[in-house]
Amino acid sequence: MNPTSATQKSDKKDGKAGGKAASRQAKPAAGWVALVGAGPGDEGLLTVRAAQLLAQADLVVAAPSISERVAHLIRPDATVADSEPFSQDPRLLVKAARGRQAVVRLFSGDPFMFCNAAADAAACAKARVTFEIVPGVPAATAVPVYAGIPLTSDANSDVRIIHAAEVSRMSAGPGTLVILGAETGPADLGKMLVAAGWAESTPLAITWNGTTTDQYTVQCTLGSVTADLKAAGVSMLTAHGPAVAVVGDGVAAQRALSWFETKPLFGWRVLVPRTKEQAEEVSDLLRARGAVPEQVPTIAVEPPRTPQQMERAVKGL
Amino acid sequence: MNPTSATQKSDKKDGKAGGKAASRQAKPAAGWVALVGAGPGDEGLLTVRAAQLLAQADLVVAAPSISERVAHLIRPDATVADSEPFSQDPRLLVKAARGRQAVVRLFSGDPFMFCNAAADAAACAKARVTFEIVPGVPAATAVPVYAGIPLTSDANSDVRIIHAAEVSRMSAGPGTLVILGAETGPADLGKMLVAAGWAESTPLAITWNGTTTDQYTVQCTLGSVTADLKAAGVSMLTAHGPAVAVVGDGVAAQRALSWFETKPLFGWRVLVPRTKEQAEEVSDLLRARGAVPEQVPTIAVEPPRTPQQMERAVKGL
Repeated sequence: MNPTSATQKSDKKDGKAGGKAASRQAKPAAGWVALVGAGPGDEGLLTVRAAQLLAQADLVVAAPSISERVAHLIRPDATVADSEPFSQDPRLLVKAARGRQAVVRLFSGDPFMFCNAAADAAACAKARVTFEIVPGVPAATAVPVYAGIPLTSDANSDVRIIHAAEVSRMSAGPGTLVILGAETGPADLGKMLVAAGWAESTPLAITWNGTTTDQYTVQCTLGSVTADLKAAGVSMLTAHGPAVAVVGDGVAAQRALSWFETKPLFGWRVLVPRTKEQAEEVSDLLRARGAVPEQVPTIAVEPPRTPQQMERAVKGL
Repeated sequence: MNPTSATQKSDKKDGKAGGKAASRQAKPAAGWVALVGAGPGDEGLLTVRAAQLLAQADLVVAAPSISERVAHLIRPDATVADSEPFSQDPRLLVKAARGRQAVVRLFSGDPFMFCNAAADAAACAKARVTFEIVPGVPAATAVPVYAGIPLTSDANSDVRIIHAAEVSRMSAGPGTLVILGAETGPADLGKMLVAAGWAESTPLAITWNGTTTDQYTVQCTLGSVTADLKAAGVSMLTAHGPAVAVVGDGVAAQRALSWFETKPLFGWRVLVPRTKEQAEEVSDLLRARGAVPEQVPTIAVEPPRTPQQMERAVKGL
């Protein structure tokens, strides 16, 4: 999809929006909508296709937390809109595309898992607006990877993904259970699963803010969530952000395979007061060790404005 | 992780491999291993992080079908190795990293879903080799997106992902069931699920070669898979490649939301015999309509080598 290379057509269909669009250069002949998964949090987990589409978009529709994360990929002259009104009325996307805009609607994780992209796709299909849907890395699979928890093994090839609201009607079963929205009441999850027939000794891991530099994971068992969280110093007062819980044997591997939140400088915010040229290299090294570099180019290396400055400095030694 | 900017250290630890490595420029002081999800097929679904790591890798380990797909992202001087021996012995990755190599091991889809990346991660952790695991877009979630099948809805937030080999022990349940490896016997899947208590009228869609230009989807019900496949002209003789099956109410949306395999030129291979400069633009337009452009720059626009050529041509008119 390369709207910039498409030929310009007259704006007879929608005078108002078309007229506005025609005043800008290189507008697509017809608008389009892309429903795009933005992944779980880490911006490196965006797909190459998502990055391409963001670079083309006239209008980016997303929750503010998501559009901020990908701001560096959005054209400076593109419009960024909060997704709230668009969630209420998918026809707003259709309207924007009919106004010849290239529209990217971002969803957390994957657009077809625990997101309402199907309603948007249906509205586009009905209105015969060109659309595409770009899968994203789902939080349900990515957060366990960042915690070091394999979802399947040779002995287990059965993964179930549910929202915390569904836990009460979840019968005991083999395989791995992934629970989204676990932040609302981790202790209740344990109780409800035990009540539904799961063994108290079943391992459970809860990961808050997965794939971000605020990630942290606590291991427990279904029967002792409250005590285990207390022992780990986690309470509803200290735990913030979304959480994903994993129930099953794979959890046992977490301590050995945890590679992200155990990086030597994990989560540290490090000031990098170097010159602009030097800062990137230092920042890369810091990122590799889990730190969050904050570049502050307070120093600049410049030639002296007059030779006298240099002379005086040398004489002063 | 930026190995090229890390400081060089002496190669006292591993004389043989270290000596070889030192003969090349800009080698990392220490090697590392990245276990990377390559997504389901469409190269646009690779993550930005995966592309970065491939550009840094000295050694790329992958099944040939995957390394061919991402060949344009691999450094020309990097080594590409078949993953077969590495699957047998994860210590080969450790050995390569100890020889100061930056190693990327690619997995289809996501490394922790139906892949053996956990064994590789465990070997690296044990040997204290630096490693990271990069989630990928899983086939189980991406193929339904490309087919136009939402996995969840307001009424259903329960997704189960299994391999076809597990179907016989799958009790009837609510939610959406995604079955990988469905190519081995689509008709048997229907029979086994009905035998396990699923209603014969439950909708089922099977998608072969999802997210590639060979994708095609057939809709049926559990009770009439054989007849429906026959009616669609699909037999074990004509159907090639991997298949993903989706069972549940979301399948009903497929005909309306199918956006990928219904593109106007979907799957067509189109010869683009333009000049190199013109071909890219035409190819982009073809790709947007689902075609596979084959650029053959048979024409070149050049100035005449001597003015006489031009004169003769004008006189000849």
